[in-house]
Amino acid sequence: MGHGLNDLVASALREDLGFGDVTTDLTVPAGTPGRASIRAREPMVLSGLAPAMAAFGLVDPALSLRALAADGDSLAAGAAALTVEGQARSILKAERVALNFMGRLSGVATLTARYVSASRLPGGGGPRILDTRKTTPGLRALEKAAVRHGGGHNHRFSLGDGILIKDNHLMAAGGVATALGLAKAGAPHTLRIEVEVDTLDQLREALAHGADAVLLDNMGPGTLREAMSIIGAFYAPGPRRTLAEASGGVNLGTVAAIAASGVDFISVGALTHSAPAADLGLDWE
Amino acid sequence: MGHGLNDLVASALREDLGFGDVTTDLTVPAGTPGRASIRAREPMVLSGLAPAMAAFGLVDPALSLRALAADGDSLAAGAAALTVEGQARSILKAERVALNFMGRLSGVATLTARYVSASRLPGGGGPRILDTRKTTPGLRALEKAAVRHGGGHNHRFSLGDGILIKDNHLMAAGGVATALGLAKAGAPHTLRIEVEVDTLDQLREALAHGADAVLLDNMGPGTLREAMSIIGAFYAPGPRRTLAEASGGVNLGTVAAIAASGVDFISVGALTHSAPAADLGLDWE
Amino acid sequence: MGHGLNDLVASALREDLGFGDVTTDLTVPAGTPGRASIRAREPMVLSGLAPAMAAFGLVDPALSLRALAADGDSLAAGAAALTVEGQARSILKAERVALNFMGRLSGVATLTARYVSASRLPGGGGPRILDTRKTTPGLRALEKAAVRHGGGHNHRFSLGDGILIKDNHLMAAGGVATALGLAKAGAPHTLRIEVEVDTLDQLREALAHGADAVLLDNMGPGTLREAMSIIGAFYAPGPRRTLAEASGGVNLGTVAAIAASGVDFISVGALTHSAPAADLGLDWE
Amino acid sequence: MGHGLNDLVASALREDLGFGDVTTDLTVPAGTPGRASIRAREPMVLSGLAPAMAAFGLVDPALSLRALAADGDSLAAGAAALTVEGQARSILKAERVALNFMGRLSGVATLTARYVSASRLPGGGGPRILDTRKTTPGLRALEKAAVRHGGGHNHRFSLGDGILIKDNHLMAAGGVATALGLAKAGAPHTLRIEVEVDTLDQLREALAHGADAVLLDNMGPGTLREAMSIIGAFYAPGPRRTLAEASGGVNLGTVAAIAASGVDFISVGALTHSAPAADLGLDWE
Amino acid sequence: MGHGLNDLVASALREDLGFGDVTTDLTVPAGTPGRASIRAREPMVLSGLAPAMAAFGLVDPALSLRALAADGDSLAAGAAALTVEGQARSILKAERVALNFMGRLSGVATLTARYVSASRLPGGGGPRILDTRKTTPGLRALEKAAVRHGGGHNHRFSLGDGILIKDNHLMAAGGVATALGLAKAGAPHTLRIEVEVDTLDQLREALAHGADAVLLDNMGPGTLREAMSIIGAFYAPGPRRTLAEASGGVNLGTVAAIAASGVDFISVGALTHSAPAADLGLDWE
Amino acid sequence: MGHGLNDLVASALREDLGFGDVTTDLTVPAGTPGRASIRAREPMVLSGLAPAMAAFGLVDPALSLRALAADGDSLAAGAAALTVEGQARSILKAERVALNFMGRLSGVATLTARYVSASRLPGGGGPRILDTRKTTPGLRALEKAAVRHGGGHNHRFSLGDGILIKDNHLMAAGGVATALGLAKAGAPHTLRIEVEVDTLDQLREALAHGADAVLLDNMGPGTLREAMSIIGAFYAPGPRRTLAEASGGVNLGTVAAIAASGVDFISVGALTHSAPAADLGLDWE
Repeated sequence: MGHGLNDLVASALREDLGFGDVTTDLTVPAGTPGRASIRAREPMVLSGLAPAMAAFGLVDPALSLRALAADGDSLAAGAAALTVEGQARSILKAERVALNFMGRLSGVATLTARYVSASRLPGGGGPRILDTRKTTPGLRALEKAAVRHGGGHNHRFSLGDGILIKDNHLMAAGGVATALGLAKAGAPHTLRIEVEVDTLDQLREALAHGADAVLLDNMGPGTLREAMSIIGAFYAPGPRRTLAEASGGVNLGTVAAIAASGVDFISVGALTHSAPAADLGLDWE
Repeated sequence: MGHGLNDLVASALREDLGFGDVTTDLTVPAGTPGRASIRAREPMVLSGLAPAMAAFGLVDPALSLRALAADGDSLAAGAAALTVEGQARSILKAERVALNFMGRLSGVATLTARYVSASRLPGGGGPRILDTRKTTPGLRALEKAAVRHGGGHNHRFSLGDGILIKDNHLMAAGGVATALGLAKAGAPHTLRIEVEVDTLDQLREALAHGADAVLLDNMGPGTLREAMSIIGAFYAPGPRRTLAEASGGVNLGTVAAIAASGVDFISVGALTHSAPAADLGLDWE
Repeated sequence: MGHGLNDLVASALREDLGFGDVTTDLTVPAGTPGRASIRAREPMVLSGLAPAMAAFGLVDPALSLRALAADGDSLAAGAAALTVEGQARSILKAERVALNFMGRLSGVATLTARYVSASRLPGGGGPRILDTRKTTPGLRALEKAAVRHGGGHNHRFSLGDGILIKDNHLMAAGGVATALGLAKAGAPHTLRIEVEVDTLDQLREALAHGADAVLLDNMGPGTLREAMSIIGAFYAPGPRRTLAEASGGVNLGTVAAIAASGVDFISVGALTHSAPAADLGLDWE
Repeated sequence: MGHGLNDLVASALREDLGFGDVTTDLTVPAGTPGRASIRAREPMVLSGLAPAMAAFGLVDPALSLRALAADGDSLAAGAAALTVEGQARSILKAERVALNFMGRLSGVATLTARYVSASRLPGGGGPRILDTRKTTPGLRALEKAAVRHGGGHNHRFSLGDGILIKDNHLMAAGGVATALGLAKAGAPHTLRIEVEVDTLDQLREALAHGADAVLLDNMGPGTLREAMSIIGAFYAPGPRRTLAEASGGVNLGTVAAIAASGVDFISVGALTHSAPAADLGLDWE
Repeated sequence: MGHGLNDLVASALREDLGFGDVTTDLTVPAGTPGRASIRAREPMVLSGLAPAMAAFGLVDPALSLRALAADGDSLAAGAAALTVEGQARSILKAERVALNFMGRLSGVATLTARYVSASRLPGGGGPRILDTRKTTPGLRALEKAAVRHGGGHNHRFSLGDGILIKDNHLMAAGGVATALGLAKAGAPHTLRIEVEVDTLDQLREALAHGADAVLLDNMGPGTLREAMSIIGAFYAPGPRRTLAEASGGVNLGTVAAIAASGVDFISVGALTHSAPAADLGLDWE
Repeated sequence: MGHGLNDLVASALREDLGFGDVTTDLTVPAGTPGRASIRAREPMVLSGLAPAMAAFGLVDPALSLRALAADGDSLAAGAAALTVEGQARSILKAERVALNFMGRLSGVATLTARYVSASRLPGGGGPRILDTRKTTPGLRALEKAAVRHGGGHNHRFSLGDGILIKDNHLMAAGGVATALGLAKAGAPHTLRIEVEVDTLDQLREALAHGADAVLLDNMGPGTLREAMSIIGAFYAPGPRRTLAEASGGVNLGTVAAIAASGVDFISVGALTHSAPAADLGLDWE
C-alpha cells in the first residue's frame, strides 16, 4: 500500500465525514482533551493497524498514536491494540472508520488462522493456506496482508501477476495442450503457468505439456490423493515436481482431510469473502 | 450512487486488471464470442446488479447486458440474474469484479431479509430493521442499498445526516440535559435529535428534555418493555411519541424477543460487517 | 471539510499556478525574504481563514503563518487577519488564491450578519436566518460555514440530509397527504419531514397529515401571521409545534416584517448566491 | 474546458447528491415522466448552458436536452434557455446544480455587459473591459467564458500565461528598469511584458525600458489622460504604441470617465468577484 | 490499459489544452469541417493507435475515426495510420497529443524490431528480446505494449509481478543461498524466482539452490557461453533447465554475439529509455 | 510543478509498486540500514532532482536525502548527484522510479546543452534554443524545466499561453491577413501573435499585417538570411523588430548554419521527443 493507503482511508472518511460530524460539533466543546484505547472484545488475530492509524492521522495530524500490538499478534479479549490521545472531537470523528478497517481485517486474519491451524498435519507441516481474488472491492491489498497476518499465503494479487488457465480458458483455447502451448509462447518468464484440471485425465495432459502447477478443482480427498500420486510419478527422477493446489468444497470441517492428501496449497475464498468482523471497540480512559 | 458508481467500480477493476489479464490474453483468441449468465448457486435476495453491470460495461462498452431479475428479488438456487454476451475476453476480464460486488451485496440483502423475517410480530407488523455505520470502507452507499433490498431500513448515511448523541458525547457535554440543549440550539431543523440511553433514569431525562428519539442500548427484552411503557406514558395525550431504537446483543436468536418489546427500530451491525457472501457464479452457455 | 479542504485549495492553485508564476520567477530573486499581512479594507465579518492558510501552506510548507483573528470575528477596516512570513516568491504565488477564498467567504459572512441583525425582534430574539442549496459549485461546505460565522444557521447540506417536499414533488406524488405518507413510510427516522405549502389550505392539509415542518413559500407578512396562528392552534395542547420556515421575497428591506410574523426560520438564497466579495488585501511589511 | 467540465460538474453533483435525494426517491414514483424548461426570471445575458446541460446529462444520460438560446444571448424575463425531458426524478435531482451554474455565470455575463455598455465612447468604440484573476476558486474557466459572453475580454488565465510585474515584484527586483530587464532576458517570446505603474515617473521609466504594456493603477481620469499623452508621445513615429490598462476604483459610475481617457483596457475585479446571481428557475410543463 | 487509458490521455490533454486553444478558437471558425490523416514520415513499426484515438475522442466524441493499420504493422514512409474527420477545431486541438503518443510509442516499437532482427540466429530462432522497468513514468503499460508490437517480450510489469533478486538484495540477505531460501519460503507460487549473478561461482550457487532463472549481468559473449554450458550440465537429465537472461552492454552492435551464446532472453533498457520518436505527421485532405 | 509534482511521482510509483516489491520484502530484512548515492555514469547536465527526491520521500518520509549537485550542473562521470540514507528496503523500492525520472530529464538537459553550444555564434551570442510541445505525455512541465537546465528557453507551455497561427489555421481562416486580424481582435493582450510562414511572400504579408513574431518553417540557411533581411528592412526606423523563429530540419549538424542566419530563436522538437536517457546509477556505500 504505502502512499496509496492514505487515499483509501481518505475515501472512507469522506463517506462518513463528508459533511462533518454534526453531533460531535454540537455537543463536545472544542478543546476537550481525550484519551482512548481500541481493545479486542473477543480473542482474535490483529490486522489493520495501519489504516486505523491513518484514519486518526488524517482527521487530525495532532493526535498522538501508540500501537500496543502488531499486525499478526494474537490478542486476548480485553487486550488493547492502539492508544490515541488528543482532541476528543477528533477521536470521535475518526473512531468508526478506524474500527471498520480493523474489525474487517482482523476478521480475515482470525479466520485465516483457524484454517491454518486446522490444516496442520499430524507430524507437523502442511499445505499453505492461500487466499483468492474474491476480495472486497477496494480492499484487496489490505485483505491479502490480513491473510498473511493470519499465517496464510497469497495467491495472485491481480490478473497480471500470475497465469491461471481456468476451464473457460481451456474451452476457448481448445484444450489443455493448446492452452499451455499458447501460454508458454507468450508469457513473461517471471510467471509460472498454472492450469485448472477437473479430472485425472486432464491432469495427465497438463503434466505432459509442462504445466508448472495445477489447480485440482473440486476433487474429494480420495481423488486428490490419487492426483498427487500421478504427479509424483511423473517427475520421479527430476528435482522439480509440478505444484498442486486444491480448491472447492473447502471449509473448516473438510480442510484437514484435504491437507492430508499431500497437496501443496489449499485456496479458500471464504477467507476474504465471508469472514465475520472481529469485535473491537474504543474505550475512553 | 449514480455517476460515483463508475469511479468505485473502476477502482475495483484497477485492483484486478491494472496490468491486464495475462492468462486470457494468451489463451483466448481475440474475437472469440461468448455468452454467459450469472446465476445464484443458493437461495438469496439479490443485490448488486448495478455495479456488476458497470464492471462489464467499463471493461467493454460493446458487451450486451440483460438483467433477468431486479435488486430485491428472491432468487432460487440456479436462477439467473444477468446475461452477458460479446467478446469472451471481455467477459472473462470483468467476471471476478462483477461477482465480488454481487456476492457481497447479495449477502447483505439476504442476511437482512432473515432479520426482517425473524422480527415480524405474531399479529403482523414489527419494528424496522436498521443498518449502522459499520459498513465496508468504500461501499457504504451500496451496502445501505442492499439493506433496503433485503427489506431493511437505513439509519444515518454519515455523521452529517443525523444527530445521535452517544455515551461519549454525553460524558463530554456533561449529561443528557446539557447535550440535548446544545443540540437543539445548533442543529439544522431538518434533523431529529436522538440520544443514547443506558438506563431508565437516563431515558426519563431524555424524555423530559425533548429528545426526538432514544437509542436504548444493550437492554434486555424486559427492560426494553419497561422503557416503552415509560415512553408511552410521557406523551400519553400528545400526538407524537418519542421514537425508540434498540441496539446491542441483537442476533437471529434474540431479535424476535426484542421486537416484541414494542420498539420502533432495531439496529444490527452484523447486516453489513459480518454477512457471508452469497454464492453466485458465471456459467457459459 | 478537514482533509477534503486541501484537495479543494489544491485545485484552485492548479487553476492559477498550473504552469508556474512566470512573472515572479523572473523578477523576484530566489531566497528573497518577505513578510506580509492580509488586512480588511472595509468593515466585515471574517470567514475563510482555513482555506487561505491552506493556500499558503500548499505552495510552501515552510511559510510561517499566524492568524490574528478568528472566523466569525468582526473586523474594522485596516485590521489584520493573517500574517505570513517566508520566501517572498511563495507569498506572491499563493496570494491571489488565498484572497479569493477569504474575500468570497467573508462576503457571505458579512451579508449574513446584516440579515441576522435586520431580523432581530424589538423585544429580542427572532427567527433563525438560514442558507439554501443555492451555493457556489464546489464551495458548499465553506459557504455554509461562512453563514454560521455570520450568525446564520444551515438548512440542508445536500439532498441526502433533509426531507423537503416541494411543489414539484407534491405534483408528482398527487398531493400533500400522499406525499407525506410516502415520506413517513420510507424516510430514515433521523430526518424530519418538511413540506412546502403555497396556500393556507395546503398548510392545513400538511398539519393534518403530520408534517414536522412547513415551508411557507412566497407568502406576505399578513399571510404568514395567519399561517402561524393556524399552526399554533393545531397543536395547542401538545408540546411540539410544527416548525415554520418562510422563503421567497426576502431582502434586507422585507426581512424585519417577515420576522415579525413569528416564523421559526427565514431562508435566504442571496446569502450565498449574491453576496459581493469583501475587500481584503495583502500588505507587505 | 471540454473534458474537464464533466469533472467539475460531477464534483458539484457530489456535493448535492452524494448520498442521493431522499425526498425525490420517496415521493416521486420511478418512471414518472417530466418535461421542464429553465427560464429567465429577469432580463439577463445568458451563460452556463454547457455546465447546466452536463449536470442533467451526468445525472441521467437518457434525459433529452434542447437549448433554446446560446451563451451570450440577451434573454427577456420569461424567455426559456433550455428544455429538458425524461424521468421526473432525474430532472429534480439535477435541477439545483444546473441552476447554480447558470445563475452564477449569467450573473457574471450580465454584469459584464453593463460595464461594456457603460464604457462605450460617444463616437463609438471604447476600451476593452477585462476580467481579473479574482475569480471563484474552481470556476475560473467558466467565469472567464462568461465575461466573453457579456462582451468583455479576458486578461491572464493564470500566472503562467501572462507577465504582469506588480508593485511587489518591483520592490523585490529593485525597480522598473531591473525588473523589465530580467523579464526580457527570461520570458517566453510568446508573452508580452506588462508592468504596473503607480506614478507618471514610473510610467516614463517603463516606456524607456521597453514595456509592452503598462497597468495604470488607481489613477483618476485626469492622470490617466496625462499618462496616455506621455505614452502617445513616446512612440510618436513608430507603429506600435505601448498598451495601457487602467485598474482600481472602477465601478459603473466611474467607468465612462475612465474610458474617455483613451486607455486600451479597463480591468474590473467585480465582474467575477461580486456579480449577483441572475435569477433563473425551472418550470414544469 | 482499458478504462485507465482514458485517464492517462485526459491528463495529457490537460497539459496541452487546460486553458483551451486560443489560436484555434480565434482563427478557425466554429463549424469548419475537416478531414486529415496521420501518416508515417519514415519507415516504422506502428504503435499507439489506441491513445491517439482516445485523444481525438476525448476532445470531441463526434469525430469520426478510422484506423488504416494496426499496432505492430510495418509502415512505409507516407503510409497512413489513421483518418479523422469532423470539426476542424477539434482535430487541431487533439493533434499534438495524439502525435506525441504515437511518435513515442512507434519509436519504441521500431527500435525493438531492430533489436529482434539483429538477434536472430543464423539457423533461425534466437533469444527473446525483453524490455525492463526503465520506462517513462506514467507510460509503462503503453511502452510495454509497444515492445510487443515490435516483436519483443515483456519482463516484469512491476515489482509485484516477478521476483528478481539483484546484487543489492543478495548483499542485504547475506548471499545467494540465503536469499533463494527466503524467496522460496515466502513467494507466491505463481512467480518464478530469478537471481542476478555476476560470476560463474555465483551462478553455480544459484543453480545448486534452485533458482528458476538467472540474470547473467554484464558478462561478455565468452563468459555467457561458459555460463550456458554450466547451466546445461546442471540439469542434464531433467526436463526443465534453469532459464538464462543476459543484460548489460547490449546494443545493436553487440546483440548478435550475445544471442549466439545461447541465452534465453536479452533485456535491453534502451528499448524504452532511449528510443528516438518515430516521425509521424497529420496531413489535411 | 509544486504540489502537482507529488501526484505525478505518486502515479509513477503506483506503476512500479502498486502491489508492493515482493523481492525486497522477501530478501531484505526489515530494519536493515542502507546508504547509497545516485551517480552519473557518463558526463551530463543534471535535471530531475526534485522528482527523484519526491520518489524517495513518498516511499518513506523517514529517508534522509542530501543533494550534492543542483539541476543545471554539469556532472563528470562518477560524480554524485544525491545521497540517500535510511531503511534499505525503502531505498530499493524507490530506486527505479527515481532513476527513471533523473535519467530521462538529464537526457533532455544534456541534449539541450549540446544544441545551445552548437548554436553559439563566432563572435559570441546566438539565438535562443527553444523546446516545442512535442513532450512526453504527463511530463511537460518537468521536460520544459530540463530544457532550461540545459541552457535552452521555453516556447509555449500549452495551447493556452501563446498564439501560434500555423498553416492549418491559415488555411481555415483564409490567409495570413484574415487570420492576423481575427487574432488581434480577440486575443488577450498579454500574448504576442506569432504566425508560421512557409514563403517569403507569406512573410511580407505577415509583416504588413502586424505579426509580433514569425515562425520561418523549413527554410534553408540561405532563405532564412533573406527572410531576416526583409524583416530588418520592414521596421528599419522603428524600435521593435518582428521576432523570428526557425524550425524544421534542425539537427546538431545544421544548427550552426541556421543560427548564423540571424534568427532570434531555433525550436527543436528532438530536445524532448528523442533525447536518449542519461546514464545514472545507484551505488551502495
